[in-house]
Amino acid sequence: MSTMRACVLRSPGDLVIEERPVPDPARHEVQVRVTAVGVCGSDVHYFQHGRIGDFVVESPMVLGHESAGVVIGVGADVDPSRIGQRVSLEPGVPDLTCAQCRAGKYNLCPGMRFFATPPIDGSLAEVVTLHAGFAYPVPDSISDDAAALLEPLSVGVWANQKAHVGPGSRVLVTGAGAIGLVAAQCALAFGAQEVVVADINPHRLELARELGATAVLDSGSGSVADSGFEPDVLLECSGHSGVTDEGLRSLARAGRAVLVGMGGDELAVPLGVIQSREIQLTGTFRYANTWPTAIGLAASGRVSLDRLVTGHFPLKSSEDALLAATVDARAVKSIINPQH
Amino acid sequence: MSTMRACVLRSPGDLVIEERPVPDPARHEVQVRVTAVGVCGSDVHYFQHGRIGDFVVESPMVLGHESAGVVIGVGADVDPSRIGQRVSLEPGVPDLTCAQCRAGKYNLCPGMRFFATPPIDGSLAEVVTLHAGFAYPVPDSISDDAAALLEPLSVGVWANQKAHVGPGSRVLVTGAGAIGLVAAQCALAFGAQEVVVADINPHRLELARELGATAVLDSGSGSVADSGFEPDVLLECSGHSGVTDEGLRSLARAGRAVLVGMGGDELAVPLGVIQSREIQLTGTFRYANTWPTAIGLAASGRVSLDRLVTGHFPLKSSEDALLAATVDARAVKSIINPQH
Amino acid sequence: MSTMRACVLRSPGDLVIEERPVPDPARHEVQVRVTAVGVCGSDVHYFQHGRIGDFVVESPMVLGHESAGVVIGVGADVDPSRIGQRVSLEPGVPDLTCAQCRAGKYNLCPGMRFFATPPIDGSLAEVVTLHAGFAYPVPDSISDDAAALLEPLSVGVWANQKAHVGPGSRVLVTGAGAIGLVAAQCALAFGAQEVVVADINPHRLELARELGATAVLDSGSGSVADSGFEPDVLLECSGHSGVTDEGLRSLARAGRAVLVGMGGDELAVPLGVIQSREIQLTGTFRYANTWPTAIGLAASGRVSLDRLVTGHFPLKSSEDALLAATVDARAVKSIINPQH
Amino acid sequence: MSTMRACVLRSPGDLVIEERPVPDPARHEVQVRVTAVGVCGSDVHYFQHGRIGDFVVESPMVLGHESAGVVIGVGADVDPSRIGQRVSLEPGVPDLTCAQCRAGKYNLCPGMRFFATPPIDGSLAEVVTLHAGFAYPVPDSISDDAAALLEPLSVGVWANQKAHVGPGSRVLVTGAGAIGLVAAQCALAFGAQEVVVADINPHRLELARELGATAVLDSGSGSVADSGFEPDVLLECSGHSGVTDEGLRSLARAGRAVLVGMGGDELAVPLGVIQSREIQLTGTFRYANTWPTAIGLAASGRVSLDRLVTGHFPLKSSEDALLAATVDARAVKSIINPQH
Repeated sequence: MSTMRACVLRSPGDLVIEERPVPDPARHEVQVRVTAVGVCGSDVHYFQHGRIGDFVVESPMVLGHESAGVVIGVGADVDPSRIGQRVSLEPGVPDLTCAQCRAGKYNLCPGMRFFATPPIDGSLAEVVTLHAGFAYPVPDSISDDAAALLEPLSVGVWANQKAHVGPGSRVLVTGAGAIGLVAAQCALAFGAQEVVVADINPHRLELARELGATAVLDSGSGSVADSGFEPDVLLECSGHSGVTDEGLRSLARAGRAVLVGMGGDELAVPLGVIQSREIQLTGTFRYANTWPTAIGLAASGRVSLDRLVTGHFPLKSSEDALLAATVDARAVKSIINPQH
Repeated sequence: MSTMRACVLRSPGDLVIEERPVPDPARHEVQVRVTAVGVCGSDVHYFQHGRIGDFVVESPMVLGHESAGVVIGVGADVDPSRIGQRVSLEPGVPDLTCAQCRAGKYNLCPGMRFFATPPIDGSLAEVVTLHAGFAYPVPDSISDDAAALLEPLSVGVWANQKAHVGPGSRVLVTGAGAIGLVAAQCALAFGAQEVVVADINPHRLELARELGATAVLDSGSGSVADSGFEPDVLLECSGHSGVTDEGLRSLARAGRAVLVGMGGDELAVPLGVIQSREIQLTGTFRYANTWPTAIGLAASGRVSLDRLVTGHFPLKSSEDALLAATVDARAVKSIINPQH
Repeated sequence: MSTMRACVLRSPGDLVIEERPVPDPARHEVQVRVTAVGVCGSDVHYFQHGRIGDFVVESPMVLGHESAGVVIGVGADVDPSRIGQRVSLEPGVPDLTCAQCRAGKYNLCPGMRFFATPPIDGSLAEVVTLHAGFAYPVPDSISDDAAALLEPLSVGVWANQKAHVGPGSRVLVTGAGAIGLVAAQCALAFGAQEVVVADINPHRLELARELGATAVLDSGSGSVADSGFEPDVLLECSGHSGVTDEGLRSLARAGRAVLVGMGGDELAVPLGVIQSREIQLTGTFRYANTWPTAIGLAASGRVSLDRLVTGHFPLKSSEDALLAATVDARAVKSIINPQH
Repeated sequence: MSTMRACVLRSPGDLVIEERPVPDPARHEVQVRVTAVGVCGSDVHYFQHGRIGDFVVESPMVLGHESAGVVIGVGADVDPSRIGQRVSLEPGVPDLTCAQCRAGKYNLCPGMRFFATPPIDGSLAEVVTLHAGFAYPVPDSISDDAAALLEPLSVGVWANQKAHVGPGSRVLVTGAGAIGLVAAQCALAFGAQEVVVADINPHRLELARELGATAVLDSGSGSVADSGFEPDVLLECSGHSGVTDEGLRSLARAGRAVLVGMGGDELAVPLGVIQSREIQLTGTFRYANTWPTAIGLAASGRVSLDRLVTGHFPLKSSEDALLAATVDARAVKSIINPQH
């Protein structure tokens, strides 16, 4: 095999399947045959708008960063026995030497190279290479789809860690897309006592309930305040400013809010509430050191990732996969198999 | 009702059922008809030896501190609608004003008054009074027995909080008595990935397995080191110095050890291991702010307390209840009903 | 002495010196002859507007909450040897029994009774009574003025604790009023490596420099971004939304922001910055457990409080004291002596 | 220059100055002309015993790991403008990719390569090479000696960080060798309210006092318990078991103990005290991410390192430098200049 197919975004709305040379692994890398790639909202956003904030697609870029596969080659410094191993790919490789990396906050590394964040190519291709330490072996109890979805699961793990969720926690999750649904499941796995999920999409609320939410709330017809629920944790996964404001105002004293959903550049927050209740607020940027925990949660069945998958697509139908959520209110997560 | 029966320890080995005046609640207290009292190792120790460390039984003392009941009266400052409420009793009331209390560490309050810690009478009586804020209403999903056992559950919650157990944790619990069994269940409820319980009693190991331990280890025939398990948390509930030493030596780098089991005054620890792996070691003294979490864990079924009960006794058979574990290797937790 | 004078706010702009009965201490209280009361911006705000947020002056209220004095009487449960003791008064007494109090977060107690927060009378009077545990003895090295100003110092200590300031920290303090100046001094005492103070008032910047700020910044003529300073901590003490926004945008990755200054109900924050740098943001509401630390900082000379005092006033000139900062750009902190 | 001199330990007691090839920097390394090397107790221990615990000198090894110098060459990936830079060398380079490294705990990296820890050669040589990211530029306000002593200073910074020392802390430092003296100075720089240093050597106690200790204690003639001092932090730097036991017993409730001094394999600790006061105990193994803080402390003058230096030696007198402390009770820290 000397060439392979990859799904390339050339400019907003212009997606093509290209033949590209099969990449060779560098000394410290594994070469992976990709078996599943989840479609993320960021892929859709790049496809539609060509940029996210300061990140602009200025030259053709392969999409995709939620991925799993099988090791088919290794670099000189990597144990060759890894060939054949099923792996989940952590899509961002930091420089490992800067102050952020050395302090354990490698997600904040200025030198991060992250799949499908311009100008770095993503993993929506037949073969990719990656630092061997960022390709994690997964047990057979984790499907290919689930192995790919350890990436969004990591977002949920990270949000719960930042929010210090644990036994006794009362958690409000706003937004029941894929991230909200993993965040809610993680909250339960972290031992939360109550996990209430709010959204306007009834299909997603139904799914939240199936996945264990102790209650769901239709944001269109009711408010958190009216519900009588007083969370001590807000995991904001909608990116909607009104929902965020309401969520923050609902928090108990000493509550924690983690803003995961991406919204505009500015957000109006209730300053008086933040001060008088000493609310702790933060945002998340990807994750760090989450894969081992995510693997454990998925392997033990505490979190269900397969249940989130609402469509499978071959590589050539990548555009359909990207647009699934815009044409079907029941769609949550599309998986593309680059080998098909 | 003007008198009631209470189980009084007069001196080591000398336990009697006495008639005593029914106590009246002070302004801020509730008066509780006690329905269940769990027997703790400390009760047994006072019965047999008349002292625990610096705490010496110098005058007759009512035993018992794991207790539940029904509110039958209230002091002037307490809401009378509480009468009839089923409650679990937190047995220690601190002074609430010292530096430790104000900092949230009320278990370390020098002015603590704790049931059945000399010279304070315990709750093994038909009626007790207690600060209203330390008598917690419990839902019907929690039995009387379980309501009493929220006290040892609190010990387990506290140990897990001190050890920062969460998703991804690999936990070793040494000692599978009542405390070890609640500590292990809590570890699972806190999201731990692996929970290995070690003991020499096969009945208790079997129970540990039933309650969810991912593995059990017969300390008599095997060692942690040989098992290949490398915990990052040790919850030491045996009070045995050899077991503690082995447990500490088994810990991974940056591991945490919480010493719950009471042993001698001095303990030999592996200094080189503690330093080279930067092990964090601490001990627990009762608990603080655990009841709300414990209630949630018991009410949701994440932790089973009823499963620990291996014998029910009327008040007059209190001595049998105290000695149950010394005559029956299957005994874990005796419950006394002071109304019978 | 059966009556005493007190400075009473009857309605916005209507301040009078009234004769009132000398208060008797309750069982757990001390009775204090007040020797110094600092004027806080909240006193001024109540005087001018009759309200702060939800707190409305609906009936005549004594102002003042930064205070020191001498114990002249004690309640039945208080050690009479305290009579004659010089004390600094922590102005808020929580209920000590609620969940927030028991968890050590007593500043968030819903039952808090705080001097000069409606409807509770303040300490701008010849004599006040207070829970004995909230009247702290001070050494002779702390003047009466400084003993009163342990209250604003506590605000600074709390902000620095919330921000986890320590050796290596680079701190930006926005706003150089009394709170900004104590926050900056605290940051230095906490070991911060750089402490930059920003304000538009040149007198205050000069004072900041005298008190040890490693640099000052005239907010009117320059921006933090232009200064090249990249703080990892923002202590926002100006209450100005534009300054807050600029301060937040200047923070390094993983930076912490503590919003101390009171502004409007809503604040626009840079969401993208908070997320991509994982900024932790919180607000402060008074303080908890700060007096022992504040006493140590003042007694050792690490923090200078006397240097903040720009005017002394007798009780009858309280209105002049309140308005000092509005008529003199050099004014920082007015002290009223109720005995004069 | 094609060869250089290095101080090589061939076997216990057998130290020679050898000519060795000048090492070339790898791609990511700097080449440093060493100007100052501090003598550490571990160098002395290897010289006398040929081993420390599991680390055994099995082939000739260059000693030295507290070092500073000037960059004289760079690898291909390093900015050549660094040539000429004065640098302090962090002596351990971890693999940067393992779980410990990624979590920010790189001092616990199993793949650590550390100067003068067998079989890795140390820095007591005319020239060494090191990962560029571990050679920190220092300002002119830090002397060559002090730049070398940023290594032991890092030990003190780390101990204080582990102990959560801050304003209000009451710190007991046991052992006033070089490590105890930097630990005490750090405690003051971290804002501690009281720092008591205990030792049996009057010269060292005098030095402790000069460096700012609020009190000193002659361990030979008095005990901490008798002194009336109740620390909340113990920084144990003596490695003496009796001193450690007494220090632990002196701790206040919720106290923290950090064991820095190396003693035997086993240590007897007071279990009852650890439990009833919930003492948190840990050990330190080197340090992580401390250099930036240490540089700040030394550059600002908050910590004095030059004051610790009690002797300067040329390379050929290395053995005298190693033995200085054994022949002179006033000796604290010897510095060797490999260029002389």
